[in-house]
Amino acid sequence: MKKIIDSPESYVNDMLRGIYIAHPDTLSYVNSDLRAMIRKQVIPSKVGIATGGGSGHLPLFLGYIGDGMVDGCGVGEVFQSSSAQQILSVTKAIDSGAGVLYVLGNYGGDKLNFELSAEMASTESSIRTATVIVKDDVATTNPDNRRGVAGIFFVCKCAGAAAAEMMGLDEVTRIAKKAADSVRTIGIALSSCTIPRVGHPSFEIGDDEMEIGTGIHGEPGVYRGQFTTAKKIVEEMMDLILKDMPLSKGSEVAVLVNGLGSTPLEEQYLAYNHVHTALTGRGLSIFHAYIGEFATSMEMAGISISVFNLDSELKYLLSKPAKTPFFSQAQL
Amino acid sequence: MKKIIDSPESYVNDMLRGIYIAHPDTLSYVNSDLRAMIRKQVIPSKVGIATGGGSGHLPLFLGYIGDGMVDGCGVGEVFQSSSAQQILSVTKAIDSGAGVLYVLGNYGGDKLNFELSAEMASTESSIRTATVIVKDDVATTNPDNRRGVAGIFFVCKCAGAAAAEMMGLDEVTRIAKKAADSVRTIGIALSSCTIPRVGHPSFEIGDDEMEIGTGIHGEPGVYRGQFTTAKKIVEEMMDLILKDMPLSKGSEVAVLVNGLGSTPLEEQYLAYNHVHTALTGRGLSIFHAYIGEFATSMEMAGISISVFNLDSELKYLLSKPAKTPFFSQAQL
Repeated sequence: MKKIIDSPESYVNDMLRGIYIAHPDTLSYVNSDLRAMIRKQVIPSKVGIATGGGSGHLPLFLGYIGDGMVDGCGVGEVFQSSSAQQILSVTKAIDSGAGVLYVLGNYGGDKLNFELSAEMASTESSIRTATVIVKDDVATTNPDNRRGVAGIFFVCKCAGAAAAEMMGLDEVTRIAKKAADSVRTIGIALSSCTIPRVGHPSFEIGDDEMEIGTGIHGEPGVYRGQFTTAKKIVEEMMDLILKDMPLSKGSEVAVLVNGLGSTPLEEQYLAYNHVHTALTGRGLSIFHAYIGEFATSMEMAGISISVFNLDSELKYLLSKPAKTPFFSQAQL
Repeated sequence: MKKIIDSPESYVNDMLRGIYIAHPDTLSYVNSDLRAMIRKQVIPSKVGIATGGGSGHLPLFLGYIGDGMVDGCGVGEVFQSSSAQQILSVTKAIDSGAGVLYVLGNYGGDKLNFELSAEMASTESSIRTATVIVKDDVATTNPDNRRGVAGIFFVCKCAGAAAAEMMGLDEVTRIAKKAADSVRTIGIALSSCTIPRVGHPSFEIGDDEMEIGTGIHGEPGVYRGQFTTAKKIVEEMMDLILKDMPLSKGSEVAVLVNGLGSTPLEEQYLAYNHVHTALTGRGLSIFHAYIGEFATSMEMAGISISVFNLDSELKYLLSKPAKTPFFSQAQL
């Protein structure tokens, strides 16, 4: 294992210390717990948004704390849920009386801990919460079992913009739910990654192979295929998305080509050519393309593609400015 | 070689096509040559800034075309210079009568082609140019032979802000020169990278080894050392920088921890802890820390650290907003 770290045991907290000293004006933590991260300025009367999940996905999840995005994040060990207590600490800190929305991926540990936190927030502090679970990964056939992957970015962006416009908890929740229902993602991996405490890659893969239907936890995909050209890879990925997401001609979408960790930006842009062709060739129009690392698995090689179906409300909210230490956007 | 590409021969142009279709409002090209990239809106009376160099370094070089940064870029084959003709096309397109500054790294091919372009621009079109060559890599003992690496970012940022404030060519050049003289960088690599047309990694390296003094062309470093903890790696890197760059107590600096391609953001932030300690422990203060990928070698694993010594003028210019497809900054 060749990682720039000091020890596998202190990896997550050391990383968090680096983040806090690099962004002292924006980020803070509560309860003396580095893993209960909040934005420094709570905005009065604004609905708070909390997210959370395992470490190893930067900029997801904590990287989206900031203006126009989310307000707090429970940070877990690598690829593990944060604790209910951490989420509760975040919830109490970011609630300004307007309630708190939880945005999380569809994982057992996260769901359990956010649910426990919601109960405690209600009974201990009478804080009203709502929860939206993102299930954007089309690799799993049964939609209820789908993982939340890079599409969580779009949900945080739109819900965050809605909260910044001072909409109430019910409205922000409705929008987050609509955003979650409107995004589909598929990932492929060319390599695995190594969890520091484990010390070896999560799976082995040949030089002529790729995994199709990979999530963001260093796991293999749903099936293994022959490694091939960018064109064929992207066409297969786009077929999997669009089969699951019937879009009528003339629909407007946003796209995210997401690097999983070690795939160069050059290759992500190269892949985007074929994403663009697949969408415009079906009569769809692309409002905006995001290309870069938005939800990673540490040093995994591979990409995911997300398609986000826009109506006028989601388009309006997506286009609003945002400013976090890891993601900035001017008005589109 | 496991890259998401269609063919090694078309790699650079395919990547460029993806960039143009992803950023149609910002980026364009001249002379029907994808490799002569300019920003779409030339600003009247503003000094133009052109940069350029080989592909494989995204977001360097072309990623810094945009508001408050540079105006055009000659794009070469992977790790190779762009042609003088491409740079000349860019120069003519971005000149609005105020002249054009060239900012480039200290490489033979780049120097030759920018020099040829400057001559042709003068004789053919009476365009006044000036050139600032960045030599920030302290790995080479002789300062004249030093490569330009991630520190080019700071030079583009400050010169770009000066040009955006409508300073004249002499002033913008003076500032670029001062910025270039004020930045030092050192890089280390944990792996090599593969040039698509070559098809195999540029060098081999053991699991317990690292290269110290690596540039951004997939080359080995100046010497090979034992792979060790983040703390020891960063301390050695900071010693190399600060030995070369005597800073008096109380000096204010900006820092760039740059991922070379496949090193996760988590590790970059973790490394930043030790950068922070090395600087503050010497009585220096950190105005701003940039952490992420700013100048890469495709999928190389490793980081570079740059220290940028600020006076009030450079600090003012660094803090100005910028907006490019690959880098955005609000007023600091």
